[in-house]
Amino acid sequence: RINSARLWDSLMEMAKIGPGVAGGCNRQTLTDDDAAGRALFRKWCEDAGLSMGVDQMGTMFMTRPGEDPDALPVYVGSHLDTQPTGGKYDGVLGVLGALEVVRTLNDLGIKTKHPIVVTNWTNEEGARFAPAMLASGVFAGVIPLEYAYGRTDLEGASFGAELERISWKGEEEVGARKMHAYFELHIEQGPILEAKEKTIGVVTHCQGLWWLEFTLTGKEAHTGSTPMPMRVNAGLAMARIFEMVQEVAMAAQPNAVGGVGQVKFAPNSRNVLPGKVVFTVDIRSPDQAKLDGMRAEIEKRAAVICEDLGVGCAVEPVGHFDPVTFAPELVGRVRKAAETLGYSHLDIISGAGHDACWAAKVAPATMVMCPCVDGLSHNEAEEISPEWAAAGTDVLLHAVLETAEI
Amino acid sequence: RINSARLWDSLMEMAKIGPGVAGGCNRQTLTDDDAAGRALFRKWCEDAGLSMGVDQMGTMFMTRPGEDPDALPVYVGSHLDTQPTGGKYDGVLGVLGALEVVRTLNDLGIKTKHPIVVTNWTNEEGARFAPAMLASGVFAGVIPLEYAYGRTDLEGASFGAELERISWKGEEEVGARKMHAYFELHIEQGPILEAKEKTIGVVTHCQGLWWLEFTLTGKEAHTGSTPMPMRVNAGLAMARIFEMVQEVAMAAQPNAVGGVGQVKFAPNSRNVLPGKVVFTVDIRSPDQAKLDGMRAEIEKRAAVICEDLGVGCAVEPVGHFDPVTFAPELVGRVRKAAETLGYSHLDIISGAGHDACWAAKVAPATMVMCPCVDGLSHNEAEEISPEWAAAGTDVLLHAVLETAEI
Ligand SMILES: NC(=O)NCCC(=O)O
Ligand SMILES: NC(=O)NCCC(=O)O
Repeated sequence: RINSARLWDSLMEMAKIGPGVAGGCNRQTLTDDDAAGRALFRKWCEDAGLSMGVDQMGTMFMTRPGEDPDALPVYVGSHLDTQPTGGKYDGVLGVLGALEVVRTLNDLGIKTKHPIVVTNWTNEEGARFAPAMLASGVFAGVIPLEYAYGRTDLEGASFGAELERISWKGEEEVGARKMHAYFELHIEQGPILEAKEKTIGVVTHCQGLWWLEFTLTGKEAHTGSTPMPMRVNAGLAMARIFEMVQEVAMAAQPNAVGGVGQVKFAPNSRNVLPGKVVFTVDIRSPDQAKLDGMRAEIEKRAAVICEDLGVGCAVEPVGHFDPVTFAPELVGRVRKAAETLGYSHLDIISGAGHDACWAAKVAPATMVMCPCVDGLSHNEAEEISPEWAAAGTDVLLHAVLETAEI
Repeated sequence: RINSARLWDSLMEMAKIGPGVAGGCNRQTLTDDDAAGRALFRKWCEDAGLSMGVDQMGTMFMTRPGEDPDALPVYVGSHLDTQPTGGKYDGVLGVLGALEVVRTLNDLGIKTKHPIVVTNWTNEEGARFAPAMLASGVFAGVIPLEYAYGRTDLEGASFGAELERISWKGEEEVGARKMHAYFELHIEQGPILEAKEKTIGVVTHCQGLWWLEFTLTGKEAHTGSTPMPMRVNAGLAMARIFEMVQEVAMAAQPNAVGGVGQVKFAPNSRNVLPGKVVFTVDIRSPDQAKLDGMRAEIEKRAAVICEDLGVGCAVEPVGHFDPVTFAPELVGRVRKAAETLGYSHLDIISGAGHDACWAAKVAPATMVMCPCVDGLSHNEAEEISPEWAAAGTDVLLHAVLETAEI
C-alpha cells in the first residue's frame, strides 16, 4: 500500500501554487504558476531518483529505470494544469499518485523489469488553448505539432509562444517514445461512484467528444435607435442555438450531454448589438453514431436558425475524439487490483476526456478512478477524501506493478 | 453658414486619435486616447479664444464670453468618447459642430448677449462604465457623484480612479453651472431621415430606457461528466431570457426595442458550465407606460425561467431615463432655422439617449439631427456626408444665435 499521508501532503503542497479564489486552483497551462508547479514536481521527482525528459510540447517524462535494458517503459501520469476555477485533484491526483507509486517502490526497494515513467502532459484542460489533451494528442500523432503551436487563447497569445516564454519547450520529438502500457489515475468528475458507494471505478471506455466553435456574424448597431426589423442579431441567434443544443442533448438521452461553457461577444458593449459572437458547443456520448448524429443535427439546425435571422454562421471543430475502448488486459488488472486490495468497484465509462484517451491510440492504456464529492469537478469546491485518493493510488500501484513486472 | 471644409477637417483630425480597426474609432472614455482627444479639442478651443472650465466629472466647458455680464450661457455640445468599435461622428459632430459655430461667429465678428459654452461631456457612451450619459446625469442631479466614481469597467477599474489617472478631474462642483439653454447636434443613428430624404431631424422627444443587468448564478461543473439532470445551467437560462426579451419587444411594437449587447461568462472555459453569467438587457420606448411594462414583464418572466432551471437570478438597473419632451420653444427655433436655410426637415423622436436628455432636466434643451448612412451607428462603418454635417451645423448656428441673442 502507498503512503497515504505523503500523497495527501504533496497534493496540498501543489495546491498552494496558483491558488484559486475559493479554495481551489487556477494553475492554467503555460502560465507562470504552471511553470512554478512544474518546478516543484521536477524537484520531487529528482529527489525520488527520477531523470527528466521534456518533449517539444513541454510534456515532462520522469523516468525510474527498469532492470531490462530492452523493455519499454510503463507510463503513468496525468496533468498538473487546471481550469481557471479548478479543483485541487483534477489531473494532479494522477500525476502525484504516479509519483507516490514510485516513492513507494523506492521505500520497499522494489525493482521492475520495465522502466516506469511518471508523466505530466501539457494542456490537458484545454481551458486556455482548445482542444483539451493537446500534448497527448500530438504525442498520439492525431494533432499536428504546428497546429498545436498556433492555438491561441482569448487574449491572442499562442501556445507556442507561451511554451517558450515559460521555458518548458523541450528538445525531444513528440511521440518518439514507445510505451509498453499507459495508466492514468483520475477523480471521476461525475456522480456515479459516490451514488453507488463504490471506491474504485474500473474504466472500460471513455465517451467521445466534439467541440464545435461557432462564429456568428451579425451587424453591429445601436441597441436604441435600430428598429427591431433592421436588426441582424447574432446574440439572438446564439440564444436559439443554446436552446437547440439543449433539445438535441435531451433527445439523445441517456448517454449524451451537450452544453456551452465559453462565449465571447464583440464589441461587448451594452448599447451595441454584437457584430460577432463566438462560442463553443461541447457534445459528448460513448455512442459513436449518436455523437456524430448530434453534431450533424446541431450544425443543420444552427444553419436554419442563423438563416432566419440573416446572421452569418461558421462552424469549426476545435476538439474531437471518438469514443475509446480501453485495453481489456489492463482493465482486468485494475479490476483484479481492486479485488485483491478489498476495495468495492464498478465498471464505468469516463464522462470527461483524458490523456489516456490519446495514449490508447499508441499503446495499451487504461484508467483508475476514485469518487469525488457530489460528482463536482471543474469547480473550486471539487473535493475528495484522503481515503479515496489512497485507494485509487493503491490500485494504481498494483496494476502498474503487475504490468511493469517485478 | 458655417465653414463646411473646416468642420470636416476637424472631424477627420479627431478621428485619427484612437483609431479603430475598420475605419472608425476606439476612443473610449477615460483611456489615454480620450485624454489625447481632449487635449486636441482644448487646443482648438483655446485657439478660438475660449476659456476652459472642468468639473469634477471631467466635463469640459469652453466659454466664449457674452456681452451681458448677467446673462446665463447657452450650452452647446455632445461627447468625444466613442464605443470600442464606434464611428467618427457619434458625439464628435456635436462637439466639433459647436466649436464650428463659435469659429464662424469669430470669423463674422458676431458678438452675443449670452455667453456660449462649447461642452464635451464625459462618458456619454456608457461602453466602459454604465450608465451612459453619466456626467450629464450627475450634472442634472439625477446620479450621485459618488455612485459615478464607483462604477467599474469589465476589468474592475473604477471611473473615479481612471478620471484621476488621465488627469482630467476638475475642481468645479458638478451641476453648479446654470444654463440659459442647451443645444446638441447629433447624427440620427437610425434610418428614418435617410429613408424619408430629409436633411434635418427636428427632435421633439427622446425615448426612455432601462438597462437591466442580470447576474445569473449556476453551478460550475464539467460539461462532459455532469449528467444533464444534474446541471444548473446559467447559460441556458440566459439563452431563454434573450428569447423572452425579443418576444416582449416584438409584442410591444411599434415604438419599442429590446436587446442585449454585453455578456460575461465565468469562468468562461469551454468545458465548464458557467457558475456566473452577467449580461445587460437594453429596452427602450418613447411611451413611459410601455417602457415600464416591458421592464416588469421581463423581470417576472426571467424569474420564472431561472426558477425552472434552479438558477439564481438577480437584476440591477444600471441605466435609466424616462422619455423626454424637449423644450417646444427651442424645438421651434430648430424647425425655423431649417426652414430659413432651406433644408428639408422632419420632426423625430431620438432612439438613442443623449446628454441633452439630462440637460433637459435643468434647462430648456433640444437637439438637431442629421442623417447617417443606412441608419448605422455604434459601428466603425458609421458614415455621413460633409453636406449633412454642414446642414446640421448651419441649423445649430441659427438656432443657437437666436437663443444667445445678438
Ligand atoms: N478530465 C478533464 O476534465 N479533462 C478536460 C477535457 C474534457 O473536457 O474532458
Ligand atoms: N447617442 C448614443 O449613442 N448614446 C449612447 C447612449 C445610448 O445607448 O443611447
